[in-house]
Amino acid sequence: MPERVYNFSPGPATLPYEVLQQAAKDIVNFQDSGIGLIEISHRSKQFMAVIEEAEQLLRELMDIPANYKVLFLQGGASSQFFMIPMNLLGDGKKATYLNTGVWSKKAIKEANQFGQIEIAYSSEEAKFNRVPAPGEYVVADDSEYLYFVSNNTIYGTQFPEMPKSEKMLIADMSSDILSRKLDVSKFGLIFAGAQKNLGPAGVTLVIIREDLLERTPKNVPTMLSYKTHADNGSMFNTPPTFSIYIVAQVLKWLKAQGGVDGMEKINREKAEMLYNAIDSTDYYRGHAEPGSRSMMNVSFNLPTADLEKKFIAEAAAVGLDGLKGHRSIGGCRASIYNAFPREGVVKLVEFMKEFQAKNPA
Amino acid sequence: MPERVYNFSPGPATLPYEVLQQAAKDIVNFQDSGIGLIEISHRSKQFMAVIEEAEQLLRELMDIPANYKVLFLQGGASSQFFMIPMNLLGDGKKATYLNTGVWSKKAIKEANQFGQIEIAYSSEEAKFNRVPAPGEYVVADDSEYLYFVSNNTIYGTQFPEMPKSEKMLIADMSSDILSRKLDVSKFGLIFAGAQKNLGPAGVTLVIIREDLLERTPKNVPTMLSYKTHADNGSMFNTPPTFSIYIVAQVLKWLKAQGGVDGMEKINREKAEMLYNAIDSTDYYRGHAEPGSRSMMNVSFNLPTADLEKKFIAEAAAVGLDGLKGHRSIGGCRASIYNAFPREGVVKLVEFMKEFQAKNPA
Repeated sequence: MPERVYNFSPGPATLPYEVLQQAAKDIVNFQDSGIGLIEISHRSKQFMAVIEEAEQLLRELMDIPANYKVLFLQGGASSQFFMIPMNLLGDGKKATYLNTGVWSKKAIKEANQFGQIEIAYSSEEAKFNRVPAPGEYVVADDSEYLYFVSNNTIYGTQFPEMPKSEKMLIADMSSDILSRKLDVSKFGLIFAGAQKNLGPAGVTLVIIREDLLERTPKNVPTMLSYKTHADNGSMFNTPPTFSIYIVAQVLKWLKAQGGVDGMEKINREKAEMLYNAIDSTDYYRGHAEPGSRSMMNVSFNLPTADLEKKFIAEAAAVGLDGLKGHRSIGGCRASIYNAFPREGVVKLVEFMKEFQAKNPA
Repeated sequence: MPERVYNFSPGPATLPYEVLQQAAKDIVNFQDSGIGLIEISHRSKQFMAVIEEAEQLLRELMDIPANYKVLFLQGGASSQFFMIPMNLLGDGKKATYLNTGVWSKKAIKEANQFGQIEIAYSSEEAKFNRVPAPGEYVVADDSEYLYFVSNNTIYGTQFPEMPKSEKMLIADMSSDILSRKLDVSKFGLIFAGAQKNLGPAGVTLVIIREDLLERTPKNVPTMLSYKTHADNGSMFNTPPTFSIYIVAQVLKWLKAQGGVDGMEKINREKAEMLYNAIDSTDYYRGHAEPGSRSMMNVSFNLPTADLEKKFIAEAAAVGLDGLKGHRSIGGCRASIYNAFPREGVVKLVEFMKEFQAKNPA
């Protein structure tokens, strides 16, 4: 294998190569301290500087208002599915959910334990091939929040614009955080598992409006209350130091790409190249409806399952790895998160043309 | 600074240098795949082999019976404080706790939400300078389990032998797991945050007897039920892949040291050197009572707080880092976990003699 292949994996996913190279040095000897990155105390000056830098870069890149707390938690995005309603709902309280895929379904299942959940929209019958347009759902007046998944990795769908509601928004942005401009002030809470656009698995970013920290019922375990982590700068217990370090490095890299604005431009260009390749022929068919297409995950089919299998194998053999679609819908999927290089998309488009020519339907 | 200093930090703590060097290679290009360690899918063959190896090595090194599950979870040992009673207790059920330090106190606080907790022993009034001897506490007949912390990092105390009880044992072994021989079959559950004897922060090991998986009340969130993780080989959601990889490497290293038996011999020798140095003079005084002394953390005092400050600073200047005691009891502490090299203890003992000679009380 060459030193580096193009990794279209949906997460854990490709990261900037320079971040990996820097981590390789720091892991053995961090900042010339004679101690490795994962051996230093989380209360050391060196690590405190890392976590502060990660938070400051996030605040700057996402333009996070001062009345929001930035938390680095463990447990994956899946733990947010119950932590959100556990902290923010309670007997008789209502919340509204948009069901656009497996991750929203799982969130709805957990939320049902903590309040009355209204599913205002579902595209499940159409194999989640679209997200709702603004007029397609109603949020009840007595709802505490509107919950949605901004990008759905499996189906390759994404809200082209964030839902608008008088209720506060809560969003799972695990697979598209920092990929495009966002108005954080419309949200009560934003969360994202790191392993797509932020860094490695093992840390989950939570951005929460300060006033919400007071809503947690008293019987919630200490570790499950957002306030515990907000009051202790994510250091109530030992945080996942390595993962937070990588997030800080990725954010520095992102800033050097021109921040979120610069990144969004690159992301639009990458996605456009790929969707143009799909739309230019009947050979490839996109899974998502055009108005719901994701810039992060491009799910598509070939004329037959056999051709898809051959496509995935031959692509891997030329250094285009991880193109197999999720088992729930099959086919192919190219995940092209922030750190996925433009050249890899160019190569994939070339490969798609060659493959079609060699393998007519 | 030299390339490597002796790091007496209590956790995150020193790791085998060869593990760090291997990680530095793998993080850029894992097993010559052209993809970095933290970029590969957790469902890839490569990572599945890593997590299976970690589990198999643990089973072999700890002689874990077949009716126990090995789980790699997130959330730190602190999350086990509530997960244990949440899964194993319930209305009217009783459990017995031994209070030997800040970590058992925190566990007791969380457990109180889920059942009737009896504190059968506490050394709090003596600044937790000892653990109980076998006859010093009674476990109620209707107790579900006896909970204890096998090693108390802050105070430098450790159960010289595991408590004996007709009830199943549950132990927080975060700071001494794999440091000495153990009969797992006496336990219902053993847990350990990784960042002392196992690897980096970000993963928590849980070893649980299979029959206990059926006790979880139905209203427990999916992610908080042990059964969820047991049924899915710790892959219900994306696991902390990097931390698990390091654990696997550390276990391989441990096996090469002669396994737990070999390690215990080295640990006893290291601790004995240090306690001999303390006992050979009135200048240094150990915090823990001799019968409760820890092989992992040696907490001690000098004649005055000023001398302690000077000792810590001058030691750091000669490459003996992290000797400051925990703020709750002050003084000095040398954490000498499995991976801490014998030569570092020799150097510290030499330094202690020199320091005393130059700085009489």
